[in-house]
Amino acid sequence: MPRIVDHEDRRGEIVHGLWAVIHAQGLEGVTFRRVAEAAGISTGRIQHYFSSKEELVQAGCTHMVALAREGHEARTAQSDPGAALRDLLAAPIPGTTAERLGAAVWYAYLARSASDPRIAEIVAAALDDARDRALRLIADLRRTGHAPCPEPAAQVAAEHESLTLLALGDGLAQRVVLGAVDGEGARRILDQELARRGLAS
Amino acid sequence: MPRIVDHEDRRGEIVHGLWAVIHAQGLEGVTFRRVAEAAGISTGRIQHYFSSKEELVQAGCTHMVALAREGHEARTAQSDPGAALRDLLAAPIPGTTAERLGAAVWYAYLARSASDPRIAEIVAAALDDARDRALRLIADLRRTGHAPCPEPAAQVAAEHESLTLLALGDGLAQRVVLGAVDGEGARRILDQELARRGLAS
Repeated sequence: MPRIVDHEDRRGEIVHGLWAVIHAQGLEGVTFRRVAEAAGISTGRIQHYFSSKEELVQAGCTHMVALAREGHEARTAQSDPGAALRDLLAAPIPGTTAERLGAAVWYAYLARSASDPRIAEIVAAALDDARDRALRLIADLRRTGHAPCPEPAAQVAAEHESLTLLALGDGLAQRVVLGAVDGEGARRILDQELARRGLAS
Repeated sequence: MPRIVDHEDRRGEIVHGLWAVIHAQGLEGVTFRRVAEAAGISTGRIQHYFSSKEELVQAGCTHMVALAREGHEARTAQSDPGAALRDLLAAPIPGTTAERLGAAVWYAYLARSASDPRIAEIVAAALDDARDRALRLIADLRRTGHAPCPEPAAQVAAEHESLTLLALGDGLAQRVVLGAVDGEGARRILDQELARRGLAS
């Protein structure tokens, strides 16, 4: 289905232009004209795919969530549960310049979610998905006894571990974005916290 | 020095108007006119205190950091180190409507820090201050043996604990803002993580 793929490519191109505008001028700076300039296409082409600025902004949020999920799945298709959990937690920590740009855009969406229920819904669904994945991986790790348990980890509810570790990953990502810690240091902290809980691979 | 206090009050009033505008329209939506409307004062009065929009936006960030610090200090002036650490970690978790508004504005500043070195500097200094405070409190707790140690906590560097717990607090705060967990649940998680480390009061 080459035509459908083309459409997806085109939408992706527009969304990347959108992110560049959000990064430089914020969500409130988004106009079709600026996104067209950033993507190197015509305003008319954007209007062909998106009927309103709101629709484009929402699509940018959905696209970011989908990219993160697909990236995680591709990286961990062959991984054991410990490595998959580690990847899930470390995913928000930016390494490349593109990932730093993505993190800044994500914070813009977080800020917007306070006043935009539709964005809040997309973000909340992404958090729920991550929590469910983490829960499954923690349950796998505990069941298979893959890792040693240096403390009575099994007494701590998996829901608690899931939420704690994901929140930790997000909080560390914030610090990397702000230069308070580097990416390697942040990943080392995650590794130590996983090992402490007997959840390392 | 009543005149100085008046000036501080006036600046605070303007900054609160600024935050309302950031919450509703984003950092890019900030104009003197809109802030004046939100604060119920004249544009001229804002210009009397702030020579540019950039100066006002930066002052809003500095003011938010100072308020958070002063709030923590006032709440914990009589506290033992465990209670003070808990307050520091839980501080970003919003409870009231005003605190939720504040959190959304804070995310707007985080997003902006990616492209604005001056804002990044203010935010990074706030993170450093929190880290130093957490480090001191953890050292106090370990030295006084105030709390039991359910695991060999002393083997984990205080720097690691400080960064981990602060990041956890920020990540949980994000989830409260997004409705993925309520404030009480987030604080319970912090309490469990402090207890697990022998750092509860």
